[in-house]
This record gives sequence, structure tokens and C-alpha cells, in this order.
Amino acid sequence: METISENRCFGGVQGVYRHPSKATGCDMTFGLFLPEEAEDHPVPVLWYLSGLTCTHENAMVKAGAQAWAAEQGIALVFPDTSPRGEGVADDEAYDLGQGAGFYVNATQDPWAPHFRMWDYVADELPRLITGDFNIDEDRQSITGHSMGGHGALTLAMSLPGRFRSVSAFSPICHPTASDWGRKQLGAYLGDDESTWAVHDATLLMREKGLDIPLLVDTGSTDQFVDLLMPEAFAEAVNTRRVPATLRLQKGYDHSYFFVSSFIEDHVSFHAEALYE
Amino acid sequence: METISENRCFGGVQGVYRHPSKATGCDMTFGLFLPEEAEDHPVPVLWYLSGLTCTHENAMVKAGAQAWAAEQGIALVFPDTSPRGEGVADDEAYDLGQGAGFYVNATQDPWAPHFRMWDYVADELPRLITGDFNIDEDRQSITGHSMGGHGALTLAMSLPGRFRSVSAFSPICHPTASDWGRKQLGAYLGDDESTWAVHDATLLMREKGLDIPLLVDTGSTDQFVDLLMPEAFAEAVNTRRVPATLRLQKGYDHSYFFVSSFIEDHVSFHAEALYE
Repeated sequence: METISENRCFGGVQGVYRHPSKATGCDMTFGLFLPEEAEDHPVPVLWYLSGLTCTHENAMVKAGAQAWAAEQGIALVFPDTSPRGEGVADDEAYDLGQGAGFYVNATQDPWAPHFRMWDYVADELPRLITGDFNIDEDRQSITGHSMGGHGALTLAMSLPGRFRSVSAFSPICHPTASDWGRKQLGAYLGDDESTWAVHDATLLMREKGLDIPLLVDTGSTDQFVDLLMPEAFAEAVNTRRVPATLRLQKGYDHSYFFVSSFIEDHVSFHAEALYE
Repeated sequence: METISENRCFGGVQGVYRHPSKATGCDMTFGLFLPEEAEDHPVPVLWYLSGLTCTHENAMVKAGAQAWAAEQGIALVFPDTSPRGEGVADDEAYDLGQGAGFYVNATQDPWAPHFRMWDYVADELPRLITGDFNIDEDRQSITGHSMGGHGALTLAMSLPGRFRSVSAFSPICHPTASDWGRKQLGAYLGDDESTWAVHDATLLMREKGLDIPLLVDTGSTDQFVDLLMPEAFAEAVNTRRVPATLRLQKGYDHSYFFVSSFIEDHVSFHAEALYE
């Protein structure tokens, strides 16, 4: 593993690292914030999955999460959103290919060889960060924004016991019924829609529910709200009577200004579960 | 004035605006955060001047200042660092021309027609924001990073009565003696070094002192510390017995991770002066 940069940040270290990935068959870059406490003992970790067009860097520099993670003694990991590089397939559209991995394992060409972001964030990267850094693998929580909110919700519901809590900012809630989803799931997984269901937070919620604390924030004036479909997820949560806090925040949109405005709440929410 | 964007942020609004500037003879873009309180009454304002290569946007998205400004009910203004556009002179180097205005009024060609950032941040933009927004012109403070720290210090010392307090992150402290300064002051102001002195915080401190609260943070391992020369400024401050807090922060570098780590301190410091 190669250290790209390490910057002192809120008493800890904001690092960026690159490593060859077996899951994606290419080099992957991720950001990792370690609070000062990690010098002494293993610390809990909050995963932050990013949205369309993002790299590992966007949330790392714009979400403002380190301030609160440092206060709580929690590590933050910022994975990239897709494989990248010259040999990796791409598409001209912003919402397919590089920068748009959707946290699935692609089965269709030209995506299948590299677009295995599910395996990367569910298996490979967790093993790598808990092995190489002072991170407590028994205390993990997960959040994300937009496509990353989709990833956070689907990972949390599909990997029971892995996370202590899950939250999301403006998540894509029902991709099998949205243009943010149908296009990508079709491209990556093929036309058989039965293979899509395990990547739809609303369908998973209807079928399996969730037994860890759940917090979701969406802007009441999010410009993409019709693509996010929070109403479908809210219906499913309420139908299953799953304990959850689902909030529509008045006047906020889809930007990082929204995320940064509520990141303190989310980090505190996760800290409560991680230190229970 | 044209509204480029307005995003809800920490209960207030983070706006970006563009306007034709008489000072620089071109369109200028700036960021302005207005806390919720500005809906009801004029609020105090903290100026944030940015460093080399930055636009209005860098600090606005990376410094994390809005969280604390919202808490204190303070506006934030993020000016650009130079004139820009097709008719505006530029240089291939990152540290001259567009993105590197150095907060001076150029007298030398090809810079003289547009590079009048002193007039822009000292006169034109203050009139514009206090006229068009709910900002209290009697309660202004100023901060900045690197080249912007230089700007904040020189403006504060040259405009007595304008600001209630001044701070800086990793400021260029002694540009007449540094490669971050001699090159630019020579290009913009010409070879007569006597014209440079009013743009050197250390020389101004030696000559005039300062009668408002002063806070400066610099990373003890800042990779550019030899160009910043905090030792010259500290010597001048101490020789004049100017009340000040000058800090070297252990292990921090020149990045926005440093700025964001201490921005809470700076906003609180200014709030104390602005609400005195």
C-alpha cells in the first residue's frame, strides 16, 4: 500500500492511500481519517460512501466530518466510487462507469472485469483497513450521500451484524424504480430485474427490515428528489415498523452544503451506537 | 449583480454572486454566507481572503467556517484572489497573475489595468455587500490563509477603524524578503522597493503596530514556512509589545486540513470582538 498524502487534521491524521485491489483488478485510492486516539488503541470507524461523480476526495474535503469524528474518537474511511484507470471501461455519461459504480458487482460486459464495488467495500477494503490501521473491526458504522446513501443502506441491510448503525444523506432509495438506478442496474447486472432487488433499499426494507439504528436526512427542496424517492423508503420503513428517524430538512438541496450542515448529527448518532 | 447559486447551509444561505467591478475592470465572483439571523437584522461579517491559486470557492467549500459562523450569527465573505477572464493578463507560473493578485493595486504593465485587488477588497466589495445584503458595516473582521493572511494583516494595519479584529492562517508575513513576495511585488509594483513596504505585514507592524485583537496560527511543519517567515512577524509584534496570540501548531502543514482544524477558534475569536 502506498501513502499518497498524510495531513495533520483536528489532532489526528487525514491520509490518502493507494493499493492494488483484487476485487476491482486495478489500483484503488481511499481516504482515511484517524483520530488522535488511534495512536493508543483501536478506534471505531464510520464508513462514508460517496455519490455519483465523486472520488475518495470530495467528502474528505467538503463534508466537514473530521471535526466531529475527532471529537468522538472515530475513524472515517472514504472509498472511491468506482474502479478507475486506462484499462477500465467508462461511459460518456456522468452516471455510468467511472465515478458511478453503484456499489454492485457487475456481471455484464464491458463492466464485469473491474466494476466489483460491492466486494470492494463489503470485503476487501474492510479487511485492509482493519488489518493495516488501528481500527476496531467490531465497531463499524456506515453512512453515505446520494448513490453512497444507497450503498450504505443496502450494505447495512445485507450484512447483518456488520454495522452498529446506518445513516444516509439524500439516498437513492428505490433504484429499481428510478432513472437513477434502472439504467445502471441494467448496464451492470443485465436485463433480469430479479438480480436488481438486492440492491434496492426500499425492496430490502420491505423484505428484511433492519435491526440497527437508522437515520436518513433529505432536503425538502432537493433538486433530485424525484429520482431519490424517499417516499417509497419511508413507506417501507413505516409499514415494517422499523425504528428509524427519517427527516426532510426544510429548504436544503442535494449539495455538500446540505451534508456539512447535518454531518455533526450523523457522527453523533453513530457515536452513540459505536460506544454503546 | 447576478446570483450564481444559493444553497441552504447551516440554517442560512451560502450564495455565490457575480458583478461587474469598477476596481478590476472585469466581472468578479464572490461567495457570501449569510446566517439565519440576517433574515431579521444586520449581522456582523468576517472577511476570508484566500491564498495562491484559489478562487472564491476553495475556502467556501473546504474551510468549514459556516458551521461556526452560523452558531455565532456572523456572515462570511469569500472574495476571489484576482481579476479573471480572457482580457486579463496572466502568467504561466501558479504564483503570478490570475489566482495570485496579492491584494495590491498594480502599477506596472501588463498588470496595471485589472490587478487592483486592494481597491476591490478594501473599497468596492465592502460597499457592495453592506449595501446589497443585511450586513452591519460597523462590525467587520478579517482573516485569511497564506497570501490571504498577508492580505488580512496588511488591510487591517492599513485601514485603522475598519476591522474589529484580525487573524490569519499561515500568512505570508514578510513578502519584501521572501520569494513569495519579491517576485510579485516587483512584477505588480515595479523595481522601486519603497512602494512595496505598505504591503509587508512585518514592516507595517514595525512601523505602525496594531490596536485590534490579533491571532495567527501557523503549522510547525508547514512545508512553506521558510517563505512565510513567521519569525520576522513575531519579532516585530513582540518588539512593539502588541497584544497578540501567535501560535505554532505542532505537526500541521499548509493545507486546508490545517485551516479547518482551527477555524472554530478563529471564528470564536472574531465573534468576541464583533459582539463586544
